[in-house]
Amino acid sequence: MVKINLQDKFSKFSEHWTPKVIAEMNEYQFKLVKIEGEFVWHNHSDTDEVFIVVEGKMFIEFESETIELNQGEMYVVPKGVQHKPYAEQECKVMLVEPKGVVNTGEVSGDLTAQNDIWI
Amino acid sequence: MVKINLQDKFSKFSEHWTPKVIAEMNEYQFKLVKIEGEFVWHNHSDTDEVFIVVEGKMFIEFESETIELNQGEMYVVPKGVQHKPYAEQECKVMLVEPKGVVNTGEVSGDLTAQNDIWI
Repeated sequence: MVKINLQDKFSKFSEHWTPKVIAEMNEYQFKLVKIEGEFVWHNHSDTDEVFIVVEGKMFIEFESETIELNQGEMYVVPKGVQHKPYAEQECKVMLVEPKGVVNTGEVSGDLTAQNDIWI
Repeated sequence: MVKINLQDKFSKFSEHWTPKVIAEMNEYQFKLVKIEGEFVWHNHSDTDEVFIVVEGKMFIEFESETIELNQGEMYVVPKGVQHKPYAEQECKVMLVEPKGVVNTGEVSGDLTAQNDIWI
């Protein structure tokens, strides 16, 4: 094991909405993603999903409300809950979720990223 | 669910080496801890443990090396690996590990903190 520097890892990619794995803990993965613009409505039917904002500002739209997350803030999206992340400007985010989770849940489309890509 | 602001949560306690739960994701917990001085040698025989430095500098001593972690850096201590965290000055850390993990592993002592305390 070596230590992991989040900003070093963020410097290794520029594309949006493509989570990159930086660490594994048991059967869970820590992923970094840069987001900008609107994602798709989706849910993860079998797991919660954690968002931690490392830099910038993002929003998560739910059916009944929209929450704003700034640097140093986190949110646990419960399993099965429909949500749509978006960011007006580029935002750097860490995700924590079980290995194997696909970014768009059960909605395949242009924004579905290849899974389990390490940087 | 409400969003969680890490610095707000850190402002709610001052004691060292007493992890406080701030969120749950499936059967895992996110905990905040302020550390200063030396902890005890211990290991967690059935789980990996993640350290993320939110502010300050800490060290994790292993049998064969010592690693230094600064703000924005993380480390996964593999299950069963003996380690001793320490910090020369107060350091704010986020831990991620399964619910039920005791801070001192199987070594009970003065530094063993009450488990599952939420803030």
